[in-house]
Amino acid sequence: MNPNRATSKPVAITMGDAAGIGPEIIAKAFRDAPAITQNCFVVGDLATMRRAVKIVSGSQNPSSIPQAVALINSAADLAKVPPNCIPLLQISELSALVPIGFLSNLTGKLAADCVVWAALAALKGDVAAMVTAPLHKEALALAYKASGEAYLNHPGHTEMLQAEAAAFLGKSMANMPVRMMLANDELRVVLVSIHVSLQDAINAVTVDNILQTLRITHAAFQATLGRAPRIGVAGLNPHAGEGGLFGREEIEIIAPAIAQACAEGINAFGPFAPDTVFMRARATSGKPGEFDAVVAMYHDQGLIPVKYLGVEKGVNVTLGLPLVRTSPDHGTAFDIAGTGRADASSLIEAIRMAKSLVGASGG
Amino acid sequence: MNPNRATSKPVAITMGDAAGIGPEIIAKAFRDAPAITQNCFVVGDLATMRRAVKIVSGSQNPSSIPQAVALINSAADLAKVPPNCIPLLQISELSALVPIGFLSNLTGKLAADCVVWAALAALKGDVAAMVTAPLHKEALALAYKASGEAYLNHPGHTEMLQAEAAAFLGKSMANMPVRMMLANDELRVVLVSIHVSLQDAINAVTVDNILQTLRITHAAFQATLGRAPRIGVAGLNPHAGEGGLFGREEIEIIAPAIAQACAEGINAFGPFAPDTVFMRARATSGKPGEFDAVVAMYHDQGLIPVKYLGVEKGVNVTLGLPLVRTSPDHGTAFDIAGTGRADASSLIEAIRMAKSLVGASGG
Repeated sequence: MNPNRATSKPVAITMGDAAGIGPEIIAKAFRDAPAITQNCFVVGDLATMRRAVKIVSGSQNPSSIPQAVALINSAADLAKVPPNCIPLLQISELSALVPIGFLSNLTGKLAADCVVWAALAALKGDVAAMVTAPLHKEALALAYKASGEAYLNHPGHTEMLQAEAAAFLGKSMANMPVRMMLANDELRVVLVSIHVSLQDAINAVTVDNILQTLRITHAAFQATLGRAPRIGVAGLNPHAGEGGLFGREEIEIIAPAIAQACAEGINAFGPFAPDTVFMRARATSGKPGEFDAVVAMYHDQGLIPVKYLGVEKGVNVTLGLPLVRTSPDHGTAFDIAGTGRADASSLIEAIRMAKSLVGASGG
Repeated sequence: MNPNRATSKPVAITMGDAAGIGPEIIAKAFRDAPAITQNCFVVGDLATMRRAVKIVSGSQNPSSIPQAVALINSAADLAKVPPNCIPLLQISELSALVPIGFLSNLTGKLAADCVVWAALAALKGDVAAMVTAPLHKEALALAYKASGEAYLNHPGHTEMLQAEAAAFLGKSMANMPVRMMLANDELRVVLVSIHVSLQDAINAVTVDNILQTLRITHAAFQATLGRAPRIGVAGLNPHAGEGGLFGREEIEIIAPAIAQACAEGINAFGPFAPDTVFMRARATSGKPGEFDAVVAMYHDQGLIPVKYLGVEKGVNVTLGLPLVRTSPDHGTAFDIAGTGRADASSLIEAIRMAKSLVGASGG
């Protein structure tokens, strides 16, 4: 993508669950990647972010902590924030600091409020993109249980964003299909299905699901690259079925879906042997990959190669939404939250990716 | 494994299909990797190997070709072969040179004869290990059709070797279970199933199949490493089923198989999330992997990570046989055979791996 594309609109970073590692990795990202976090602000809680800055500094002495957190009232205030200061927009308040590493309906609701605010800001065009630090799905469920409010009744970020985008556009959620893309510097993989058993993933290999994945991938990359992307499509079976010898899904389902996509002007190729298509798509310094993206038939087929060289560089991108949203490829890590040990690499990559994707929403 | 383990017995390299790239990559291996091919000889056809040497040299002038092929009568003759000379044992003859890139029952039979000879030599202890250049399965089938001889009635190398080993030990083939291992410098993966559809691979995830894979892996590595290997076991479903949420095979099948293996003294761990277990097992300079090998539940789960960094370094090792057998991880490549363009890297790695594994057969 184009990391140099200038944008004047800022990027909103949602704080995630206040009891998880989100606040700490955000503090580290602002400290360690000032160029990448320039023109970004946090949607979150002031006291929580101040605690995170203290944890990350490793110091008990406030005067020796090199970072500060500055409250802003809107994105327009960003220009006034001094360097080494994390700009923070507080759209909802915690009554008190919550203990780190524990589930709470309060942190669940705060995290969701930040996501909803950022989604609307992105949909309205007030921010260029949103980057979401990890929320905790159980805390979100507790928040819904405690309040009964419909906007909290979602399993996670993706569904919440689908609902907000659908409502904004006056569509039903069913008409707001999305796909998960995992990306790092060398490989971009879009998944036909995600968190289902391998058996259910086989059942989800249908012409409709593949075609929808290809359409979403095509549209997202077309907007970013300014040209039709080359999309490699993995088979389902070893050797892509070897002509029907080990499975017929390639012949009966995947090839017809590719043919239909091609008829719509999508540059889709395959189905290819799953054990070599990712290697072929891999871009390294000096060797561009054969494809801009690979459509994988199931979760692990796509995630094994993306994660093989290290999870810390993987970024999750939600394709199909009328906004740009990226996130680090990890969870709240309650087990290490509060220790300052959490690695901010994936969040930093997610911010970098969000900036490079700006324009992809067609906005 | 231990690449420095000294062995005085030679390694036999079978020529593979005479119409494929086997002869050429063997000629290149002897030319480009003299240290690795030292104490190795080819089981094949003299005229075919001489043609391959000529192709690989790129020269039409015999006096300018730096390599020669020297006939030997037995492994004992190896010491007499001068440098830059490929030692060749001819155990069966082609009536004439066969055209390159075409299927023939003659090349099928010759390839099989070489494999059977090398297998018996390895079983009897006359050679330390065997490395097999690719044969063509259809040529092998043609050879069986033409002659009706039972030893040709096998789909490929692996079954042929199982049959020879079983006959040598007076066992049935059913009592000679084998598993395919794919290995490169950083990762070793053993597969529960190979060339079946993904649906059949799910059905093959049984306690018996997993336990057998663990026993074979344990025995092979125990012999090579001189200690019980640490074996990581991948789950079948995303996130290893996330506690039963996306599939129950981990709970009902894989974990019980691991428990039983542990009760037998096997160091098996898991089941782990498939999208991170290979990264964890990956050994890089300065960082040993967490596991000596990973047991993968199906073909692509294991082969995607092994091949991601490039197919040319992948080596196929057959575990479970009472002999050491490795092979390059590619086929006969009829499309480029005769051009001299075939890459010998995987064959060279296979020879290096075979030498490092010597001792693994318990011989």
